[in-house]
Amino acid sequence: MDPRVERLQRRSVETQGLLSLAGGLPAAETFPVAELARALEHTRADALQYDWPEGRAAMRAWIAARLAKRGAAVDPDDILVTSGAQQALDIALRLAAEEGHRIAVPNACYPGALELFASYGCELVAAETPANLAYTMPVVENPTGRALTDEERGALVAANHWLVEDDAYAELRFDGHVPAPLLAAARERVLHVGTLSKTLCPGLRVGWLVVPPRLREAARRVKHETDLQGNTLAQSIVESYLSNNDYDERLASLRRFYAQKAEALMVALRRRLPECLFEEPGGGFSLWLTTGKSWDDVELLRIAMRCGTSFDPGRDFRRDGASRPLAMRLAFSSIPAGDIDEAVARLARTFDEAARTPGLTGA
Amino acid sequence: MDPRVERLQRRSVETQGLLSLAGGLPAAETFPVAELARALEHTRADALQYDWPEGRAAMRAWIAARLAKRGAAVDPDDILVTSGAQQALDIALRLAAEEGHRIAVPNACYPGALELFASYGCELVAAETPANLAYTMPVVENPTGRALTDEERGALVAANHWLVEDDAYAELRFDGHVPAPLLAAARERVLHVGTLSKTLCPGLRVGWLVVPPRLREAARRVKHETDLQGNTLAQSIVESYLSNNDYDERLASLRRFYAQKAEALMVALRRRLPECLFEEPGGGFSLWLTTGKSWDDVELLRIAMRCGTSFDPGRDFRRDGASRPLAMRLAFSSIPAGDIDEAVARLARTFDEAARTPGLTGA
Repeated sequence: MDPRVERLQRRSVETQGLLSLAGGLPAAETFPVAELARALEHTRADALQYDWPEGRAAMRAWIAARLAKRGAAVDPDDILVTSGAQQALDIALRLAAEEGHRIAVPNACYPGALELFASYGCELVAAETPANLAYTMPVVENPTGRALTDEERGALVAANHWLVEDDAYAELRFDGHVPAPLLAAARERVLHVGTLSKTLCPGLRVGWLVVPPRLREAARRVKHETDLQGNTLAQSIVESYLSNNDYDERLASLRRFYAQKAEALMVALRRRLPECLFEEPGGGFSLWLTTGKSWDDVELLRIAMRCGTSFDPGRDFRRDGASRPLAMRLAFSSIPAGDIDEAVARLARTFDEAARTPGLTGA
Repeated sequence: MDPRVERLQRRSVETQGLLSLAGGLPAAETFPVAELARALEHTRADALQYDWPEGRAAMRAWIAARLAKRGAAVDPDDILVTSGAQQALDIALRLAAEEGHRIAVPNACYPGALELFASYGCELVAAETPANLAYTMPVVENPTGRALTDEERGALVAANHWLVEDDAYAELRFDGHVPAPLLAAARERVLHVGTLSKTLCPGLRVGWLVVPPRLREAARRVKHETDLQGNTLAQSIVESYLSNNDYDERLASLRRFYAQKAEALMVALRRRLPECLFEEPGGGFSLWLTTGKSWDDVELLRIAMRCGTSFDPGRDFRRDGASRPLAMRLAFSSIPAGDIDEAVARLARTFDEAARTPGLTGA
């Protein structure tokens, strides 16, 4: 994240009355805290002991069973429980990338991936460009909420390079039709990433990485070196939670919840900012708003905060960090549904004010 | 860890009736599971949300207050909550080490540190040798349980290189006299590591790294890239636990508990293996047994497992991975006190059997 953006976002969460469209956080009111506390009560002390790097067997068996239902047969021993999806990405990079490698990324891409890839000294190139590795969110992209087309999926499977498949939001596709992971089609070249952060809660830090069998030992070694093991407290809680609660029912309810909020955001945008463009998100927490404007997005964020709202500036999602043409991620996930229209009204006022501000436009 | 040792240790934990002196785990019966479950009940949902990379403010304030009591004044903003002490070491290396750097380590050293340092392409050299960075556990060393002498502390503080100070076991010094961290004497050159894994439970994965103020932003950036943030679930539980329980009383009780087990191990060793040498541990979970023998330690472990016990082979603690002269870590921490004498009797039988086994001795 641009350091200026981080400072602004840190300030925005402390600003009383600000209606934020930034962050892309899950809605805290959906976190099953009481159920998780009950699950911990039933946890045995030895489940909180040190563990082997790959994570708890029951947790990995559950992940393998979920993948099997989607058509990907995976040995639980090829699964590594990680500290969220971000650590799964980091370990994937340690296994598959070297300094100077080219990594193909979507035009609007999850910023945590872009920053990580750059930190490895890799060159970021456009999707479908020749590369050593491609990063993709095939079912629900962050920030756009779109799914890959069949052609795009086919091209990725046919390409002869590493694929990092980030399925963080896949289970939150609004129509519930979650396709087979690319893992099923290219087991030997796919490093598959998943997480419970979007569907249970981020604070658990339970994610996972599925590696080709030949990388099993190397993946465990990297995990051991970087932080020994996953969080057994969280895994134990999750295992107990999953045996006593209906996860699929929870997913169905979350899909309805987020789909309704996405709809509210789209209605407000069409009414109040009709000159802006977006693709209807098929799932996830956000949409990607594009404009023909050449305003600086960080300056626009400053104005937005004065107007009582905020957004995620487009530069953080672009491989070259470009501010222009103006784009932004707007998240509908954590803002109360009843506040969405007012937040967009404030965003529209932000655009009006920007239009009257000299110097916001690049030369 | 030597892959053969890992396979043997994995098998040993599944072997019924084996009395293990390996692992160096805290005793699971000391984990305050019921108290942690009550703490989670009192946690608010928004505490389980995404967080900034540095970790929760209350957790960092508590860590700073503990350090202040030991004479080290640290701004909580220079503390990063990590996924255990191991991740703190990894981030310290990312901040301070480069490929080819020389890292000075104790002659008997925590294996997780040795493996990590080697993975960065660093050269491991003996303590008090000229180096770019020194790794030290000044209060309670793993595996020896010893503290640095005043002269050794002085030499580290006077040296003009990075110091990674690993205080994982410091609070478990049996006499309760926990000296000031080296951090207090060389704030600008010390990367200080701590953890709750030994005193509450490892499954929480709550550790920390204290960095010099000029590295604050860089440390947060590395944490964000590698796994976004610490576990807010665990931090929230710990915060609530610490406000409702007396941590110092817990420490006092743990010190007595582990000191008694250390004593039982020393009594048994003096009686049953009088030819072996060890220094009395001043704290922690283990002692370091040295011998004049030239047996291969992995072969000896195989014999030990047939005799119904196990230990951690010395090679994993040595910077050059040497098996000889034979040494081993013996942990008293997680074996039931009543089993210690029988475990040592089995180890003595192991030595007897080894003495009759041809080919165990190096040419």
